[in-house]
Parts: sequence; C-alpha cells; structure tokens
Amino acid sequence: VPKDTQPRAPRAVGVIGGGQLARMLAEAASELGVHLVALCANGDDAAAATATRTIVGGPSDPRAVRELAGSVDALTLDHELVDLELLDELVAEGVAVRPSPAAVRFAARKDHQRAALSAAGVPVPRFAVVDGADDGAFDAFCAGLDGPPVVKAARGGYDGRGVVVPATLEAARDAVRELRQFSPVVLEERLDLLGELSVLVVTGADGQRRHWPVVRTIQRDSMCAEVLFPSGLAEDVERDALEVAERVADLVGAVGVLAVELFVTARGVLVNEVATRPHNSGHWTIEGAVTSQFENHLRAVLGLPLGSTEPTAAAAVMVNVVGSARPGDLAAALALEGVHVHDYGKPWRPGRKLGHVTVLGGDPERARVRAWEGAEALGTSLAKEPG
Amino acid sequence: VPKDTQPRAPRAVGVIGGGQLARMLAEAASELGVHLVALCANGDDAAAATATRTIVGGPSDPRAVRELAGSVDALTLDHELVDLELLDELVAEGVAVRPSPAAVRFAARKDHQRAALSAAGVPVPRFAVVDGADDGAFDAFCAGLDGPPVVKAARGGYDGRGVVVPATLEAARDAVRELRQFSPVVLEERLDLLGELSVLVVTGADGQRRHWPVVRTIQRDSMCAEVLFPSGLAEDVERDALEVAERVADLVGAVGVLAVELFVTARGVLVNEVATRPHNSGHWTIEGAVTSQFENHLRAVLGLPLGSTEPTAAAAVMVNVVGSARPGDLAAALALEGVHVHDYGKPWRPGRKLGHVTVLGGDPERARVRAWEGAEALGTSLAKEPG
Repeated sequence: VPKDTQPRAPRAVGVIGGGQLARMLAEAASELGVHLVALCANGDDAAAATATRTIVGGPSDPRAVRELAGSVDALTLDHELVDLELLDELVAEGVAVRPSPAAVRFAARKDHQRAALSAAGVPVPRFAVVDGADDGAFDAFCAGLDGPPVVKAARGGYDGRGVVVPATLEAARDAVRELRQFSPVVLEERLDLLGELSVLVVTGADGQRRHWPVVRTIQRDSMCAEVLFPSGLAEDVERDALEVAERVADLVGAVGVLAVELFVTARGVLVNEVATRPHNSGHWTIEGAVTSQFENHLRAVLGLPLGSTEPTAAAAVMVNVVGSARPGDLAAALALEGVHVHDYGKPWRPGRKLGHVTVLGGDPERARVRAWEGAEALGTSLAKEPG
Repeated sequence: VPKDTQPRAPRAVGVIGGGQLARMLAEAASELGVHLVALCANGDDAAAATATRTIVGGPSDPRAVRELAGSVDALTLDHELVDLELLDELVAEGVAVRPSPAAVRFAARKDHQRAALSAAGVPVPRFAVVDGADDGAFDAFCAGLDGPPVVKAARGGYDGRGVVVPATLEAARDAVRELRQFSPVVLEERLDLLGELSVLVVTGADGQRRHWPVVRTIQRDSMCAEVLFPSGLAEDVERDALEVAERVADLVGAVGVLAVELFVTARGVLVNEVATRPHNSGHWTIEGAVTSQFENHLRAVLGLPLGSTEPTAAAAVMVNVVGSARPGDLAAALALEGVHVHDYGKPWRPGRKLGHVTVLGGDPERARVRAWEGAEALGTSLAKEPG
C-alpha cells in the first residue's frame, strides 16, 4: 500500500432476506458507496446478483445471522419472518439492529399491534383476538357484525397469505380452525371501502422524521397491483392519513422506513397493515421522490441524515409485474417512452412478483395508462380494471 | 424445479474494466434485471462490489477477456486501453463487441481521429502528427502558431495524462521527445476558449440515435470539475455542437454512448475529445434525464430500444469529488437537501476521482452552489472558482 493511500472503511449494512427489497436496498447502497451484505435463503435470490456480498442461510439460522451481524455496522431486514428472540440477543450483545426487534414485534404481530393501536386511540377496524372457533369470543364478535368476519393469522402472513375472506359464518369458523394451528387468529369486521391509502414515514436513528406523499393503492387478488400519486382523495382524508401514520410511527418507534396501509371508509381512515421496512407502496419513490425509500432506509439504519422526500413530478404511477402464463417482453416495455422498468431478476413463475414499472408525468391518468402498458408488455397477470 | 417454474435466461453484458463507469453500468443493469460481469484488474476495483460477477484480470489478458466474452451476450468497455486486436479476433469469432473495435480505434487513436475528422470537414483544432521533435514537421507546424503548441500522446492518454501544455517551444520539443517513446504525437494549436461543451449521443444496435441536452463542462487541473445543464451558451452554439456531434457519431459508427467534447472558440465549435463509452460529462443524467447514459448504453449494447433522453428538471449540476488531503464527510454531504451523492467505493487517495454529486433544480445558480457545497463536504480537492 503506497504511503498516500489510506483505505476508508466502507460503511456496511446487513439485511436479513434476499428478496426484491434487499435488491433495491443494494442498488441504493451502491450509489452511496455503502456495502450491502444480504442473508439469502438461496444463492440465486433476487438480491444475490446485486449485493456486495451474499451469505446463504435461513433468516432464523443463528450461525448465518451472527456471521452477517459480525461483518456489518448495522443490521436490518427485508421481511418480518425472522427470529426476533435471536435479534434480541444480538441487541443485548451490542449489535445495532434497526428497526429494533421490539418495533418489528409490535408491527408484525397483528394481535398485539391491533390491541396496542386500539388502546392508544388509533382508529382500527373492529377486531377480536380468538383462541379458536368454538369459544364464546368468536360468537360474541360475530354476533355484532352484518356478515362473516375477515379471518387473519396474527403472525407470518404477507401479500394476502394468512388472510381469509369467508363467504359464510361456517367458512369463517373453518378458517379459524385452519389458521389457529400455526398462529393466534384475529377476526375483523368486513368493511365497505372507499379506497386504500399508504403512508410511508422514515425515522432517523436520532428520531428525525420525514414522510413521503400519501399514495393510493389498488389491490387485485389480495396483492398490490398499482400505486398512484397523487392519491386523488380529498385533502382532509390525506391529512387524517398522515396524522394516523405519525401516531403509529410514534407508537412503533421503528428506525428506518415504516409503511402504514390504511382503509378509507365512511367513518374515516382505519389502520390496515403496518410494516417496519421499505414497502411495495413506496417503489415509486425511486424515480418519483428526491430520495427513495431505499436510500432513506439505509441512511436511517446507518445513523446518517435523512434526505428530502419531496416528489420529483406532479404524478407517478407504479404497477407491479406479477408472473402470468408466459414471460413478458423486455424490449416491448422499453420501447414505451417514459416507462422505468425494474426487473428483480427472479425466475419467472405465475403469481410471483417479478418486477414493477414506474411512470412519472404531469397528468395522472396518462401516466397510469402508460404504466399499465409497460406492465402488460412485461406480462403481468393482473388486470388494470377488476373483472 | 417445480413444473411451473421456467427460469428466464437473464441477459448479460460483460464490461472490460472495473472503474466507476462499470460500477454505474452495474447499478443500471440491476434495475433492468440484466447481469453485469466486470473484468477488473483488481478484486477491489470500484465495480467489483456492485457487478453480478467479477473476473479478475487485465484488459488485454486474452484468457480473462475470452472468459468474459464466453459468459455474456455482449461485450463493452469502460476505458479505451484495451487490446483492440484481441477484440477484432473475438468479433471474427462471432462475439458481439459493442462498440466495435473499429469504432474504438477511430476514437481512441488521436492521430487517426484528427485526420479522419478533418478529412470529413468536421471542425477540429489545427493539428499535426509528428514523428519526433527534430523533423521538419514540428518546425513547419510551430512556425504557423503564435506560441508553443499543445502536445498530446495519440494513444493511451486520459484525464489530462498524455497532454502537455508547454510554456516554451523548447519545452514543447522536450514533451514530444518524452511522449514519442510510447506513442505517436499530435501537436495542436493552443486555443483561446470561450468555453467547453460536451454532447452525448447514443446509437442503438439498429442505428437509432438519441442525444442528451448539450452541457457545459468546466475543467480544473486538466480534469473535469463540473458539468452544467443548461449550458448557458447561445442557442446557435448549442445547435452547432449538436450538429458536429451527430457528424462525429456518423463517422465513428459506435453502438452505445459516444461522448463528443467540444471547444467553443471565436471561430466556432471544434472537436476536442471523442470517447466511445459513458462519460464523466453524462453522470448528471442518472437523476437529470428520463434515461441515464448508463441505462441507454446497456440498452444499445443488448440491442434493446433506447429510452428518452429528455431532462427531468430545468437545471442540473454535477461536481466531481476528487481526493484531497483528507477524506470527506458523507454525513455532512447528506445533510444538504437535494444533494445526490455517488461514492464509487474507491480507496481514498489525493487526486483520484472518488465520486460525484448531482443537484437538480429550477435555478441553475442555486443548484450549482448546492452541488459545490456537497462536493466540498465530501472533501473534493478541486476549487469552485480557479485560484
């Protein structure tokens, strides 16, 4: 090493999980000169091609998680199906785990989360935590409803998995029996929705807080199909959504990005889901905001100042690419002016989230049409309009 | 492998070279789901942390270059100091080398380039190719000048290396003797510059062509210090610059990004340098254009449609971060609203290009002030104003 060369120790973040969120964290890390080490269940996970280094191992494998923790400045995660007790141990040993296991636990355990939000006066759907289908709690809760409840596994669900919307009370009972085998069960009233919103906030290690603009999310087949900025909803609804999201963020206390998904109903906004990580409803921020959710998550996790969350265009539309009967055509998508393609490099499979497209513009409806053209060229299985 | 899983063969590009250009190509490749394999001279080159895969070897090592060519759909390069005869062999064997060795040779060999451009009527500075300092050609050329000529190595120079601006005719003679040892030598008239411009064009494999807006470049210590969009120069100067760049692109015939650097003088724009690859004067396009130079280079190399080169803001300023006496402070730079930091992850060393910052905005001068604040926080050694 020549005398005038003084290697800088690059900052390094470890992420438990190797999916598309970890991959997009790695893309943001590269720009900042940050090393991103991904703990991937498989060597060909989405993040493996892009991370600085990959450790192959399960998210609850103590050896692999400890190897990851030992090689980075801070640990974060791209999903909640992690061993929180192991993370507690690491925190006790001085590892910077951001968000903290306590924050992840708060958000990821729906029984606890619903009870805590409700106790704090944050609006949530009417709910009950039940031990089984045959106890009095099930009957008592359902007696107060107009129809059968939505049945949710309190732990381990994502992208609609672990959520059942039964047609009859008997089907609800069956769903509780099924889900109860691996998780506590939460019953919720079925709501008439005026729409769904998402608010992403980011909290720095020093407590500073920023939020991106409120977006509207549109679901198909229990998956997020598209995300619209601006939301198109009334200003007071957006204001309520931001206020609720800030209160949830205060309660959860997560360093990094927190996604708060909200139902819009006749009686106001209600919290649907909470995630302590970058979120599908924030992918549009890669092009659509001065600082993306991925860059700000890294900044927060590393204790760096947060960046501006201002939008870069009047309108942005993100549409997911979900595997259909046959793979799509990248060249056809790229031929569409203004379509930003994000391909997660995952093996094609029907029903799987394979990528997304984002279109910015001055006109929301034109951006939306173009974004759907892009997603359709890439072969998405979801339809623009339901039916 | 389950029956419904049908792995897509990911598109793969190989790049000869592992510097920051290869690193930023890898960042763009990740978004598109393209594999980027980098041939790095050292395992800790800038691109190694970000490329899908790294092959360690020199750019003229036949074994390493052939290994690279054998594992990708197309081959490109991040610098011109490559073995063009080896690339000729690969082309003859059917490898897609983009840009072609002929195009790289045209651009990189300044003696040939100057003669060919001049013969085609493209405006260049007055020049002469000389064999030595003591032949008649040196004296004949210098006799027609007001002062000593600029002396350039025809091959192998970059970032001011291989370019000498001597104070006296005797110093010019010495410079010729020095450079003649390893390269043919080009003498050029020293010009009174009104400014310097750069035009980046990209040519698809099918011949389609796009250009990004003309930018102004400002040099310090023979290195690019900053790049300004808009250029601030008169419309007719920009029009001439675009026209000259298109003519150069037609002559060079390079698939991918071509950078044409131009002198602005009292007698019009003159071609200074030509590079058949993404270029420092195009880093601003990562945030400042709908499609960056890196993404469009990959699209061209892979035979995909080109993306829009429209700017995303009214103004964009890029400032290079060049290593100074001590490393800079990432946190201080990120605390500056609107500063996009690009850190190439290279070991800190005085005089070395370590990264750049880009600031977009509505007001060119405010963006410029902010960009310099960012670069200074990161410890750049270059001064905003010459001094």
